[in-house]
Amino acid sequence: MKHFSDRLIEAIKAKKSVVCVGLDPRLDKIPEFIRKKYFKKLPLKRGVHPKFPLLAASEAILEFNKGIIDAVADIAVAVKPQIAFYEMFGAEGVNCFIETIKYAKSKGLLTIADAKRGDIGTTAEAYAKAFLGKVDVGAEFGGAETEIFGADSITVVPYFGFDGIKPFIEECKKNGKGMFILVKTSNKTAGDLQDLIVEKENATAEKSGNAGQPVYKIMAQYVESWGANDIGENGYSCVGAVVGATYPQQVVELRKIMPHTIFLVPGYGAQGGTAKDVEGCFNKDGLGAIVNSSREIIFAYEKSEKGETAYAEISRAAAEKMRMDIAAVL
Amino acid sequence: MKHFSDRLIEAIKAKKSVVCVGLDPRLDKIPEFIRKKYFKKLPLKRGVHPKFPLLAASEAILEFNKGIIDAVADIAVAVKPQIAFYEMFGAEGVNCFIETIKYAKSKGLLTIADAKRGDIGTTAEAYAKAFLGKVDVGAEFGGAETEIFGADSITVVPYFGFDGIKPFIEECKKNGKGMFILVKTSNKTAGDLQDLIVEKENATAEKSGNAGQPVYKIMAQYVESWGANDIGENGYSCVGAVVGATYPQQVVELRKIMPHTIFLVPGYGAQGGTAKDVEGCFNKDGLGAIVNSSREIIFAYEKSEKGETAYAEISRAAAEKMRMDIAAVL
Repeated sequence: MKHFSDRLIEAIKAKKSVVCVGLDPRLDKIPEFIRKKYFKKLPLKRGVHPKFPLLAASEAILEFNKGIIDAVADIAVAVKPQIAFYEMFGAEGVNCFIETIKYAKSKGLLTIADAKRGDIGTTAEAYAKAFLGKVDVGAEFGGAETEIFGADSITVVPYFGFDGIKPFIEECKKNGKGMFILVKTSNKTAGDLQDLIVEKENATAEKSGNAGQPVYKIMAQYVESWGANDIGENGYSCVGAVVGATYPQQVVELRKIMPHTIFLVPGYGAQGGTAKDVEGCFNKDGLGAIVNSSREIIFAYEKSEKGETAYAEISRAAAEKMRMDIAAVL
Repeated sequence: MKHFSDRLIEAIKAKKSVVCVGLDPRLDKIPEFIRKKYFKKLPLKRGVHPKFPLLAASEAILEFNKGIIDAVADIAVAVKPQIAFYEMFGAEGVNCFIETIKYAKSKGLLTIADAKRGDIGTTAEAYAKAFLGKVDVGAEFGGAETEIFGADSITVVPYFGFDGIKPFIEECKKNGKGMFILVKTSNKTAGDLQDLIVEKENATAEKSGNAGQPVYKIMAQYVESWGANDIGENGYSCVGAVVGATYPQQVVELRKIMPHTIFLVPGYGAQGGTAKDVEGCFNKDGLGAIVNSSREIIFAYEKSEKGETAYAEISRAAAEKMRMDIAAVL
């Protein structure tokens, strides 16, 4: 498989787009005509099997997602399903997550499993294989090496240090996959940990050349170095960074620290980030980042007069507007 | 529901034990007689449906887990299934995770979903409801508020700051559940981020009174303060901390910073932690921590001459030895 960063950059060039659509399907915001279709199958009058509503919810979400995916497939370069909104419907929801990834890939979209996974080495290895590689499902007994989530990339937390990162890098290298490590997140209290200033007299920090800097810059330094051994043809590594659009000044600094790192930029749209805010995420060639918007695209129908049955075309228009807005500043 | 910390402490006193058994079921280490039973059902000669091996693996793991749970139910206070080893078998594996939690609870064990979840506010809320609370699964259409994972507690990452923690605290308060925030992990590169020394001239750190301290101590300060508004009858909050047994000196310092915090202590046994190493995790009354061991208990049969069919009784003996070893130093 081709290097993840090259696959991503080719898609960016082909579609003239850096748009990533976040598939965060809150059930109560799925158009009612879709929800009704699946829930009306339930034997409501008598005792409902506890799995039935979970299945109905998951099927409704999958139909909704497919509508969005069809509508944005030639505008967006990637989709980013947030697994929390699937896990909340149990095993049925996880199945929906897997089917969503499969469908998006079949429509030529790159997929980012927004799972924020991370753990000590052996556990991180299990996650890495499940999301980016293959798992041995009893091959000696007639089972097989099986792709489980089949995502093109995953978001990862850095709290465990390199131990928790290495197994993901290995799967990336092996399978042409990618990862995005949390560096500077888009939320208000991101600074509780990420903005702590690190002392100059600090063995670890001194080595990284970032002493006197906030934690998020040290993380940025780590990310750039962790990816340094696996650079694709376009000059970017398989180890990307999550950098929130809601902190535009810090974005500019981070771009300098991580020249070979692809940024996944959340916080656009509903969270307050604008096209101007994300400008700094890009290198001079206009590459190096993709920008995610979730609610403002997938639930755009809520602000439209066309009504919920037109949700997909309304989402398409919202994605196209975002593509153009960002193109205008690049 | 009674406060999580009181439920835990009552179990500790009743069982005279602080043992937590980590259910990290690597498929290739499940006794062969169990694996065979489920895999031999597969129509091996012809094309195997891709779900069949996943189902066989999940069923084998569930039988294995039930054997362990039955064997340690009166010795351990809690079990801690690590979700990575279930997610790696897709939706079927997640179902096995849920069934494992259900079974452990039915045997009087407290459950810790070792999921290391964490995200921005709205996403953290989805995780919190899924793991510790109830999810609205289409109630308006005949669905219901449904318990999804039904765990008593969950492990959480602090990278997002308080935004990512608050939704979990709310579910804890509402449902008598608990959480354990990563403070100092047990792995070798834990220090990459956690040991960075924070400057004295630092607004955020100064407020916390921990300037000049490593990141993990600042996290400890946060954890103690985040739990301060929800203290149970025994003096402990619903917000616990993950503190690795592999760093015994740091454990002593952390105990002082977090007097009202229950420690979940990984790293015992296979990772190198001893009874002497975990001594510092406890308050003077011998309370305030539970100690986890995974491989050394659940795969103890590998080092025994009794053979794999006796795996459960061998695990029971290993758990009892751990209980006694720790009791001896308290």
